[in-house]
Amino acid sequence: MTLLNLDNPVFAAYVVAAALMVLKVMLQGWMTVVRMMKANAGWASPEDLRKGLINRAPDPAQLDPNDYVDRSRRLHRNDLENIPAFWTAGILFTAADPALWLAQSLFYGFVLARLAHFLAYATQRSHEVRATFYSIGSLIVIYMGAHVLWNVLV
Amino acid sequence: MTLLNLDNPVFAAYVVAAALMVLKVMLQGWMTVVRMMKANAGWASPEDLRKGLINRAPDPAQLDPNDYVDRSRRLHRNDLENIPAFWTAGILFTAADPALWLAQSLFYGFVLARLAHFLAYATQRSHEVRATFYSIGSLIVIYMGAHVLWNVLV
Amino acid sequence: MTLLNLDNPVFAAYVVAAALMVLKVMLQGWMTVVRMMKANAGWASPEDLRKGLINRAPDPAQLDPNDYVDRSRRLHRNDLENIPAFWTAGILFTAADPALWLAQSLFYGFVLARLAHFLAYATQRSHEVRATFYSIGSLIVIYMGAHVLWNVLV
Repeated sequence: MTLLNLDNPVFAAYVVAAALMVLKVMLQGWMTVVRMMKANAGWASPEDLRKGLINRAPDPAQLDPNDYVDRSRRLHRNDLENIPAFWTAGILFTAADPALWLAQSLFYGFVLARLAHFLAYATQRSHEVRATFYSIGSLIVIYMGAHVLWNVLV
Repeated sequence: MTLLNLDNPVFAAYVVAAALMVLKVMLQGWMTVVRMMKANAGWASPEDLRKGLINRAPDPAQLDPNDYVDRSRRLHRNDLENIPAFWTAGILFTAADPALWLAQSLFYGFVLARLAHFLAYATQRSHEVRATFYSIGSLIVIYMGAHVLWNVLV
Repeated sequence: MTLLNLDNPVFAAYVVAAALMVLKVMLQGWMTVVRMMKANAGWASPEDLRKGLINRAPDPAQLDPNDYVDRSRRLHRNDLENIPAFWTAGILFTAADPALWLAQSLFYGFVLARLAHFLAYATQRSHEVRATFYSIGSLIVIYMGAHVLWNVLV
């Protein structure tokens, strides 16, 4: 018998939360693209200054840092610092056969915390607000990692 | 019965694509190392200016940004923005028991798109070329995430 | 029968190593937070200069690069370049049903190499020391990726 199967409601909850986070990370890349196009700035590489469909009027200043674009890149980096660890912790946690209510609370709690973090960061709320949602997401992943270790080793 | 098993041809296709992407990401790190050694520049930390086997003639300018080295770091960052999400989306997609032809097309399509993105970026092709291959890879991962959600929730 | 189950001692070893790496990555984020608070510098976003609980005496210089804080961010980036690939390579390797002694050596060897890399980087050891531990970890992941491909394709 395997726990990593959609017949297991814990795994089904993991799949929903993990797939939502897949969409979150991938759409963050597109937010950077949209912001680069709108600002016509914040390009990453020297060759992006070649005239073409994406850049009709090249200007060396387009390679300068641009907070509107960099904010999306910082959001993306923050995602990468948290979400891949969630994907792995979640699958390990599922394999440890936890209570369904606990798994659902942690999985969906993480999704909600990251959504709130996104909204706080994108709308430039104070550091305290963003830090609160970051902390909730981070503590959920740390809890799952510790729970798994305890379960296997103790 | 489990779908996450090499007896399942969808999982076998996932394993091949995911392992190729593991090698891609890890070799990107070595490309940065090789470029740092060849350029003798683009070092990341103050202590890298200590004289030693890696750095025989230290010079503070070695800590300055260097496009030859940074290009490999940007490739690496772009990998990290796409490939871990592919690893997770692929395993979720496999658990959703898709048609084999569809799974193989998406898994190998992603590998080919990322390979083409690498070649376009490494050889400084125009932004349009690189963006096309980035988009193909990204849309494949987004499709897999959406397919999984649809499959579980609808 | 599934190999991705705690009854399989290879999977149990994977779970322990992967969970330790989950904790490593997440705690790296908190090391950055602690260093930002202690240095009262190295903040990432313009809105972090607003007066509040986290920042009682804002000063524009707090947005300047700060090596004490950036060192933790570089450690984090190095983790992201290596650990998610380990998480995936490890699960693929487990599915390839390797010998237990080999799996344990690679999984725990990776954990020890990354711990040594952390200590070398955090205490500013020479580039050669840090590079040695980076290389050990990287070669372990590359070996697992190649082993899996060989196993499935040959």
